[in-house]
Amino acid sequence: MAKNRNVSLSVIRRLPRYYRFLGMLLDSGFSRISSTELSLHMGLTASQIRQDLNCFGGFGQQGYGYNVGQLREKIGGILGLDKGYPVIILGAGNIGRALANNMKFPDLGFRLCAIFDIDPEVIGQRMATQTVRDISELDEFCLQAHPKVAVMTLPTAAAPPLVDKLWQHGVTAFWNYTTYDIVLKYPQAEVENVHLGDSIMTLCYMIKEDCDGEA
Amino acid sequence: MAKNRNVSLSVIRRLPRYYRFLGMLLDSGFSRISSTELSLHMGLTASQIRQDLNCFGGFGQQGYGYNVGQLREKIGGILGLDKGYPVIILGAGNIGRALANNMKFPDLGFRLCAIFDIDPEVIGQRMATQTVRDISELDEFCLQAHPKVAVMTLPTAAAPPLVDKLWQHGVTAFWNYTTYDIVLKYPQAEVENVHLGDSIMTLCYMIKEDCDGEA
Repeated sequence: MAKNRNVSLSVIRRLPRYYRFLGMLLDSGFSRISSTELSLHMGLTASQIRQDLNCFGGFGQQGYGYNVGQLREKIGGILGLDKGYPVIILGAGNIGRALANNMKFPDLGFRLCAIFDIDPEVIGQRMATQTVRDISELDEFCLQAHPKVAVMTLPTAAAPPLVDKLWQHGVTAFWNYTTYDIVLKYPQAEVENVHLGDSIMTLCYMIKEDCDGEA
Repeated sequence: MAKNRNVSLSVIRRLPRYYRFLGMLLDSGFSRISSTELSLHMGLTASQIRQDLNCFGGFGQQGYGYNVGQLREKIGGILGLDKGYPVIILGAGNIGRALANNMKFPDLGFRLCAIFDIDPEVIGQRMATQTVRDISELDEFCLQAHPKVAVMTLPTAAAPPLVDKLWQHGVTAFWNYTTYDIVLKYPQAEVENVHLGDSIMTLCYMIKEDCDGEA
């Protein structure tokens, strides 16, 4: 598969969107599509789309457009969605539980292999495909199962010592819902932060700008 | 309050982070901080920080640095966190429930005023400060309470007709967890998309790049 370390993060962030959208097209029975049609449905320019896809080798054919199924499969391959990286969830509270139940990990490149919590009320509960484990079992589990990725859905204050421990066990990628800034201590970690509070504060700003603009 | 419509979205997206970080500093007893110290803790350059804050009028004092409490309050004001915009949640499934229970809406510029669902099992349940309402009450509720913002935590397929309805009722801002692309139909809507699937696919790509790099 064509890869390119110099591809910008903004291009990479668009790939899941292409992937999703091509899936919807497939479900609706489309087998090919031009970059112009893609652009109308995705709110990007056709030239932007051609540029994006050219970063990975260019899949289109002049005058024919893109084969929807092939393009989707190629983008899925670029993203690595067939990899099934072993992932653990730390924190089985509201968010951890929602992710365990809602995310289709196998379709997204991952394999959920354990959920940990500290709360005796929660430990032992069944959640998605897993039984919630006591956090005291984390070391032993890591030594046996070698998870690569951790979903951090625990209180921020609890995150730093656990990240230290996970890092020692070879967990180098984090889907981080806490506000602990992992890369400050571990610059080589792969971290995807999901700061829901920041997201809704940004929305607040946008609304305020609108309202003030109207006044 | 200084405002500037030309401020780029990337600056705006950093404001919640400054706000959070300044709150942590306050909690730790800091009353002032230099842009250099801020930069060490935030992984930005001091010059970047000065530039960001200058977009809104510049709060620092040469040789003194920033007053942590004042700066935080000013950024909160710029974000509009004192506004208390009325917000409703559509969809009381795992994600809707997690947000209702976890998000401190009043601290983030919003006031949760209703939660709706279609499932008779869920309707009538207590969730955070609310009792889940039947979606059939949505019209009447909007006519009376004039919500401004909707959190879309329902299945994507159910979103389009509900967005149409909400738009007619004057709901113009959406915190959107579905993959329905609201701005394609409503370009003037303020939309903050939270695509958790896209986020974890991006993480998958970053891991894959690392692994392939090692090989």
